[in-house]
Amino acid sequence: MSAVSRRGGMAVLVFDPDDAGYLSELADYVAIPSVSRDATPTVMRAAAQWLVDQLSFANGHLVETAGHPVVMGEWLGAEGAPTVLIYGHYDVQPTGQLEEWMSDPFSLTVDGEVMRGRGSTDDKGPVYIVLKVAQAFIDQEGRLPLNVKFLFEGEEEIGSPHLPAFVAEHVALLGADLVISADGAMWRPDEPSLSIGSKGLLSMDLVVTGAEGDLHSGRYGGVVANPVHALCEIIAGLHHTDGSVAVAGFYDGIAALSDERRGAIAAVSFDEQEFLEGLGLRQGFGEAGYSLLERLWERPTLEVNGVKAGGKYTVIPHRAVANISCRLVPDQEPDAVVAALQAHCAAITLPGVDVELNVDPARSRAYTIDADHPAISAAKVALASVYPTQEVLLAKIAGTLPPVTLFEEFLGAKTLFFSFSTADERLHAPNEYLRIRRLREGMLAWEQLWRLLASGPYRLQPLAQRESRISDGE
Amino acid sequence: MSAVSRRGGMAVLVFDPDDAGYLSELADYVAIPSVSRDATPTVMRAAAQWLVDQLSFANGHLVETAGHPVVMGEWLGAEGAPTVLIYGHYDVQPTGQLEEWMSDPFSLTVDGEVMRGRGSTDDKGPVYIVLKVAQAFIDQEGRLPLNVKFLFEGEEEIGSPHLPAFVAEHVALLGADLVISADGAMWRPDEPSLSIGSKGLLSMDLVVTGAEGDLHSGRYGGVVANPVHALCEIIAGLHHTDGSVAVAGFYDGIAALSDERRGAIAAVSFDEQEFLEGLGLRQGFGEAGYSLLERLWERPTLEVNGVKAGGKYTVIPHRAVANISCRLVPDQEPDAVVAALQAHCAAITLPGVDVELNVDPARSRAYTIDADHPAISAAKVALASVYPTQEVLLAKIAGTLPPVTLFEEFLGAKTLFFSFSTADERLHAPNEYLRIRRLREGMLAWEQLWRLLASGPYRLQPLAQRESRISDGE
Repeated sequence: MSAVSRRGGMAVLVFDPDDAGYLSELADYVAIPSVSRDATPTVMRAAAQWLVDQLSFANGHLVETAGHPVVMGEWLGAEGAPTVLIYGHYDVQPTGQLEEWMSDPFSLTVDGEVMRGRGSTDDKGPVYIVLKVAQAFIDQEGRLPLNVKFLFEGEEEIGSPHLPAFVAEHVALLGADLVISADGAMWRPDEPSLSIGSKGLLSMDLVVTGAEGDLHSGRYGGVVANPVHALCEIIAGLHHTDGSVAVAGFYDGIAALSDERRGAIAAVSFDEQEFLEGLGLRQGFGEAGYSLLERLWERPTLEVNGVKAGGKYTVIPHRAVANISCRLVPDQEPDAVVAALQAHCAAITLPGVDVELNVDPARSRAYTIDADHPAISAAKVALASVYPTQEVLLAKIAGTLPPVTLFEEFLGAKTLFFSFSTADERLHAPNEYLRIRRLREGMLAWEQLWRLLASGPYRLQPLAQRESRISDGE
Repeated sequence: MSAVSRRGGMAVLVFDPDDAGYLSELADYVAIPSVSRDATPTVMRAAAQWLVDQLSFANGHLVETAGHPVVMGEWLGAEGAPTVLIYGHYDVQPTGQLEEWMSDPFSLTVDGEVMRGRGSTDDKGPVYIVLKVAQAFIDQEGRLPLNVKFLFEGEEEIGSPHLPAFVAEHVALLGADLVISADGAMWRPDEPSLSIGSKGLLSMDLVVTGAEGDLHSGRYGGVVANPVHALCEIIAGLHHTDGSVAVAGFYDGIAALSDERRGAIAAVSFDEQEFLEGLGLRQGFGEAGYSLLERLWERPTLEVNGVKAGGKYTVIPHRAVANISCRLVPDQEPDAVVAALQAHCAAITLPGVDVELNVDPARSRAYTIDADHPAISAAKVALASVYPTQEVLLAKIAGTLPPVTLFEEFLGAKTLFFSFSTADERLHAPNEYLRIRRLREGMLAWEQLWRLLASGPYRLQPLAQRESRISDGE
């Protein structure tokens, strides 16, 4: 295996030389349709139990919450070594329109160099990589190089509504020197990258109502306000024509982009045309004065994710709903953005309709980790051992991983994003997939990362006061 | 029965004094979920067969079309008497949101003075009335007072796509001196009214597409155009702020409202506030310069009936669709309105999205019948026999009955709307209902109408050349 020589004499694990076993095992996991938005508790529990079974070496077990259960485990046999908390999730997004899938979303389907299926890249495949690495350490070396705790939740795709209480209640049990997230994709398939930030998230429903019930559009058309027209007028008013957000106060508090950051972004090798063509688009669109990458990484957004009212029959729908989400950047206070949106909607006076903005309680701030944090340095070396000819890019995640701000707040631990998913793998969309080679690349990289964090120049400094014992009274 | 004395010595039929039998029989018909938009052919055929069985006295039978079958029948034993063609439909609208129904839409449910169920008022109940009148004539007098043909279609709620070809191919078989429609509601429950016109109809889908597939709103938000935003911007631009249509050319050719017509409308007893309160609204809305009734009866409309894209999950939907319909008034040429809409959409240039307007092929003009047409006079007298203390109001149907323009074009026959449905009975909406008393009132009125059209001062002039024989070679 050529990777061995690259790793400068460090001990190496031997992984299965044939993908078939991995693919078959992962297919069992993908086959459990653990759509947190609408699956039954039985289905969600089956997915959680699949992880518990994989964690037999670490006392894997379910912990109940007010929602879907959390899977926990820990192997703490590396006395004096640092402790990491591995985070991931076993829930998946809804499939969307089934007819847009080329194969059954819950049958992992190998198609050339990729495997397709809901959860393949978000987040079942990336979590599977970590499990295999840990099992290989135990099988081949009898131990892990450092202390490892596992926390896999079942509600990430619905905004982790019960994770805050869970983390708050289990601070000592979860305590670690670093969180490593198996969730959060790399930016591009052809280069290794690390994320030094992610955006925050607000979700809400904009609801416009008119009459008590749907009205026949012939019998009432032209005489009463149509809630669909009103909803569209409001949505049209949320952005300026360049795509920037037109809600007063939305951008308040955001520091201007520094020349340094602008320079660093401009230096990234990025072919905008190729990026857009890959999406089937002829042109991009967005806030004037910022490059595409600047908008993606550094600017907050407000996107309407869905609209629904009536149908193809002659009614004036009495209710029209838009599902909206905002991605926030550092310095944006979620509650302040909510207040700005509420004020914007309260100022709307459209005759004959009522307008309501219902903001979901789960609200996440943006997150950042310093580019010179030791975990970033170790991760760079680990990636270099697998991708020796390519420089590691420091990118940002324009998406949101709400748990990371929780870990910072309650555990005082930064999170390293170390996923082998890639942002182009149709996350949240039909035909989600994972590149098969990433399974093996991920295993090699995780192995090196753990070795690097355990000893040598990138060793994490274990903080004794954060060390947990299961017996500490929780 | 007090009605007898009112009818000035004309022969009278005796209807069942107890509603139970009627309700039970009608419940069987409503129980067949003949939603033309999506029911199976078997279900549609079951509803058609129910009518065939009721038409045993008139050689009822199915006639195939390229869509759902047509039910036909005729009783032509009144030699020398005029011939009327009775029109109605056996299909119903989709239920809409089931959770908004107070009872199963396909279980006819008596609730105080009304019976609730999909099709109860549009159009199963009103058709049932005619069938019972015809059967009572046959049972009690051995004959009908005039020649009667029956044509019940199964595609009215989807714009009667196959009726034009059917009527064109069966001109002789359908020929009549007058069409009487059992479809097309009276305006208000507390006064008798006749409609002297109905609006035309155009239906279309406005489709905005962006990327090839849905995109994760975190990973692509702010950098590509969102088709939902674009769709809403287009919809917001379809109307001026007063609700009038902003599409250039939309109003072309429409004659100004005459002072006489304005005066007649102003003279109608109408409590706008009560009308709006009945819908759960505090205020109306619509084109400036016209009263509510003027807008309802005399002005064309463009209403968005539905919108659909994405959902409550973090995507940028790649496709957003609006279902739109226009109601047309006399002098509006459907094809010219289509051209104006196409030109409006073609002029839209929004970066990063494609805009398409797909107009349905079925297009109906507006329809009018003179207020002094003999059929209107006869109908006034028939209504007066049932509602002796109330003046008959001449109203218009703001909705559309596409078949009536066909009958005029191909059969040269005007259509009298003579339905005992009322416009407030939640047509096309959840909890559709029919007032139970209207069954009996309708039977009495139809009986008188047929007698009046057959002989006496309002007798229709039969046109020999239109008389059909089943044997005439079709």
